[in-house]
Amino acid sequence: MSNKTKHLSALPLGGVGIIGTNMMVYDCDGDLIVVDAGVSFPDEAAPGTDVIVPDTRFLREHAKQIKAVFITHAHEDHIGAVGYLWDDFAGAPVYASALSQLVIQGKLQELGIQPKKGQLRTIQPKEANVVGPFSVEFVQVSHSVPECYALAITTHYGTIVHTGDYKFDDAAPFGQVTDEARFTEIGKEGVLAVFGDSTNVMNPNESGSEAPVIAHLTKLIDEAKGRVFFAAFASHFGRTFEVAKAAAKNGRKVCFLGRTINKFIAHSKVLGYWPKELNNWVIDAEEAAGLPAEKVFVFASGTQGEPGSSLTRLSQGADVRGLKIKQGDTVIMSSRMIPGNERGILNVVNGFYALGVNMINEENDRLTHVSGHPGAPEVKRMYKMLQPKYVIPVHGETRHLLAHGKLAAAEGYHPCQLKAGHKLILAEEGAKPDFKPYLSTKVYPHGFNYIDGLNILENDPLILKERKRLGYDGLIVASLAIKTTTGEWTSDVSLQTRGLIDEVLQADVMKSAVNKTGQALEAVFQNGRIDDRTRAAEVISQTLRRHFKHERGKQPATVVSFVEV
Amino acid sequence: MSNKTKHLSALPLGGVGIIGTNMMVYDCDGDLIVVDAGVSFPDEAAPGTDVIVPDTRFLREHAKQIKAVFITHAHEDHIGAVGYLWDDFAGAPVYASALSQLVIQGKLQELGIQPKKGQLRTIQPKEANVVGPFSVEFVQVSHSVPECYALAITTHYGTIVHTGDYKFDDAAPFGQVTDEARFTEIGKEGVLAVFGDSTNVMNPNESGSEAPVIAHLTKLIDEAKGRVFFAAFASHFGRTFEVAKAAAKNGRKVCFLGRTINKFIAHSKVLGYWPKELNNWVIDAEEAAGLPAEKVFVFASGTQGEPGSSLTRLSQGADVRGLKIKQGDTVIMSSRMIPGNERGILNVVNGFYALGVNMINEENDRLTHVSGHPGAPEVKRMYKMLQPKYVIPVHGETRHLLAHGKLAAAEGYHPCQLKAGHKLILAEEGAKPDFKPYLSTKVYPHGFNYIDGLNILENDPLILKERKRLGYDGLIVASLAIKTTTGEWTSDVSLQTRGLIDEVLQADVMKSAVNKTGQALEAVFQNGRIDDRTRAAEVISQTLRRHFKHERGKQPATVVSFVEV
Repeated sequence: MSNKTKHLSALPLGGVGIIGTNMMVYDCDGDLIVVDAGVSFPDEAAPGTDVIVPDTRFLREHAKQIKAVFITHAHEDHIGAVGYLWDDFAGAPVYASALSQLVIQGKLQELGIQPKKGQLRTIQPKEANVVGPFSVEFVQVSHSVPECYALAITTHYGTIVHTGDYKFDDAAPFGQVTDEARFTEIGKEGVLAVFGDSTNVMNPNESGSEAPVIAHLTKLIDEAKGRVFFAAFASHFGRTFEVAKAAAKNGRKVCFLGRTINKFIAHSKVLGYWPKELNNWVIDAEEAAGLPAEKVFVFASGTQGEPGSSLTRLSQGADVRGLKIKQGDTVIMSSRMIPGNERGILNVVNGFYALGVNMINEENDRLTHVSGHPGAPEVKRMYKMLQPKYVIPVHGETRHLLAHGKLAAAEGYHPCQLKAGHKLILAEEGAKPDFKPYLSTKVYPHGFNYIDGLNILENDPLILKERKRLGYDGLIVASLAIKTTTGEWTSDVSLQTRGLIDEVLQADVMKSAVNKTGQALEAVFQNGRIDDRTRAAEVISQTLRRHFKHERGKQPATVVSFVEV
Repeated sequence: MSNKTKHLSALPLGGVGIIGTNMMVYDCDGDLIVVDAGVSFPDEAAPGTDVIVPDTRFLREHAKQIKAVFITHAHEDHIGAVGYLWDDFAGAPVYASALSQLVIQGKLQELGIQPKKGQLRTIQPKEANVVGPFSVEFVQVSHSVPECYALAITTHYGTIVHTGDYKFDDAAPFGQVTDEARFTEIGKEGVLAVFGDSTNVMNPNESGSEAPVIAHLTKLIDEAKGRVFFAAFASHFGRTFEVAKAAAKNGRKVCFLGRTINKFIAHSKVLGYWPKELNNWVIDAEEAAGLPAEKVFVFASGTQGEPGSSLTRLSQGADVRGLKIKQGDTVIMSSRMIPGNERGILNVVNGFYALGVNMINEENDRLTHVSGHPGAPEVKRMYKMLQPKYVIPVHGETRHLLAHGKLAAAEGYHPCQLKAGHKLILAEEGAKPDFKPYLSTKVYPHGFNYIDGLNILENDPLILKERKRLGYDGLIVASLAIKTTTGEWTSDVSLQTRGLIDEVLQADVMKSAVNKTGQALEAVFQNGRIDDRTRAAEVISQTLRRHFKHERGKQPATVVSFVEV
């Protein structure tokens, strides 16, 4: 039984079966470390909520055992929940790179959280961070944000490599190439298990280098006649800086629109990533608006069609701080469509076409973007270095995880699939030589919660069901005054609707609703006294739902309010 | 001025700038014909609504001028609104193929509409249907539903070819190949303008024939070890029947799950499309559930991840009339993802993978589907036959329409872009030789309406704004009893929420909301009498919105109800 025997295990609290909300808990003989704390973004299943975070009841129930938290890199799906879940870390130290630290500090500040002194710890690659029975080394990998690391987690049971997000690219921004020498060494020292990125494993090709992308984007800017608007993920500022440098060489002043890109610019200045040659080229939007078209390069945020982003507003013809799209402008989207966002992105793209823009995006130009995740050949390349005993696919939807397992098996490795809420036991004290990893029969608390303003909505919340009902069917509110002493109702039921019908145009429907409700009450409470408020509310609700279903084909949500007089 | 001079013009009431809700009004010297009446499907911009239909105020305002309605084919984006908009046709005859007629009759029946005797008219290809100054010929084209036609619309100004949806395929189902001989003749007789399908014009290749798809699907079924579940668009029953025949040859009984496919099967029996060799092979779901796996082929509806469809429910592990997905089953999705549906479809795909299915869809097998719309080479092929003077792109989003115009110009034709709400004047009485088509300066009523139960929501309706607000931010209802005679309020405000907070867990927040509301009323109505109900409602709403914003980070929708006692 896994809980009584000393063991090494992994419990995914997110990121398995979903791309996003990454969080893994490794357990060595009862001591725990947490890797990443990411968010994902809600769809129409959770209207009005801000982000989705992992359900961390497990952490709260095992607070004393948490030795440390490790953050692999500064993407929201790995770092976005750090602030919201801060208290669940129970004061444990949080290890992250300098850039990730700045991002975390920003999140804590926004939430008014003051970390304990020394709780945030800056790591250096190749340094061993020892916490309890774990020794954790950050190994540099290329990705689409700087300072991205795999973790080599060594325990007395052996070494786990948690790859995080990675790719291979000799031309990675800021020279941050995947440290193949170190991975090869770690492989030689022996790797028990790899927990590996599955995002792009269904891609039979390598994800590709930044070099041809930068060269192509440079060429597009050189060729552009009018203003250039450029959109990319703000966190991928390595690419954006290269492109801005090319624009400056081309004689264009550069303007950065968007809160997130400007945060990353501030961080990049602190950390030395900022290219000094851009210093005299940066201007604000108002200034850009006054320059000749061929002198202007604008970074605009919003590659995913986000409502309210600079790019979306520009595509709608809006004036964004003095900038407005004109015929002959060039718009370059250096990004890909994340599944679920296609409709919003295509609306933006159509908007730009309608404004007479020279539109360049993945639909007509595949060279504007490469992924930061490994294709199948890169996954093989990583495992060839590491020679892991077990391959555990993470960071993927079901089909990615299964394809990853298949690929690992085809390469001669032993794949193991994780299961949400179950521990995967990788090694046990006193295990027999034929021991194989297995899933705990016990199911631990797991799932997803929603950040909703200052609330956290937990466990399939009723609140979201109510919102969906209201947003789908509309609402009718019925109020009635009742004499508290006798239960007599002293007025007609008073009705108000929202999102249901036009009360003025359909006054007859409203009037007959009032009449029917009164008749229904009289039929049930024949002595003219409401002696059961719950029953009366049911009678009113049911009458109104039936009435509007019959008259208008809609069954609204109902609120019945008795005012006691 | 286009309205006074006799002319030939086209007014798009839908289908331009959007794929869906197709409707074109052609005007010859004041006589009108309507081509198609399609729907599109609402997204989160119109929650709770059923379908989107064109705004037909123009038809109602010109009812007497409508000579006829022509339906090109039985796809919902061309035929779906015929029932909802029936009255707007003002009794004009509706010309359609036999299959389209059956589909229309079904829609009218559902809505309880009885067409006038003789109002529904069955067409024959190559026959001239003369209505007022128009002579309209249906010319057969291949597409992804049988009985699909282009229209050759001849007037004394010249001939317009309205292509509808089309492709070229020598192996089209039921031998319904595009009638190139007739198009060539029409071209020789002279074509003033083509209104052409733009959907796939950005595809540099031909859409491809059904033949290799059927061959490939047959091979997949031959190779399958367990049960085969097959999903395709129900209207594309030509493909489905071929695949079912292959399954029957393979010794599999065939079961058809889904209301729409069974409607089309009924139609196909009436019209002679049903393959008699399937007669002894069709079984119902309950029977299929009892057969050995290798004896079962199931058509399941729901290629777009529609909630509640057979395919979606099967992917969730549900029991659909006795059928439940088992490890080793094969699922083939013979379709493509329509933009906006990706997330739902991928959830279905992941669900099948998780159930251990041998999953075959466009992600891992491109041979399972071909489009019914012409790629660029097919558009050129059509225009080479027709030699139109003008090319007018329709049936596309902005980027498709512009790409179509570009392609036409590159081929030496004169493209003209339509604009929603504007007439395109194609010819005028007494025009000079250098006449060029132009858009009317007058803007005609146009837009999109929403079918919402038994309502039609028109013109950016407040109802949808209210629904979105409710669904996003939740609701608080405040009720208060007021003495009608004096304006005194006789109780605390009574509050109820929906989709906002947990009233039990956060009773303190609710209680302080009651207190603050009372205080705010006392501050404004210092004599204890509410002499202005509107003002009082504003005070209560504002107090509650501020309170919940501060306490919970959400500003709910508010309903204030005064009960007069």
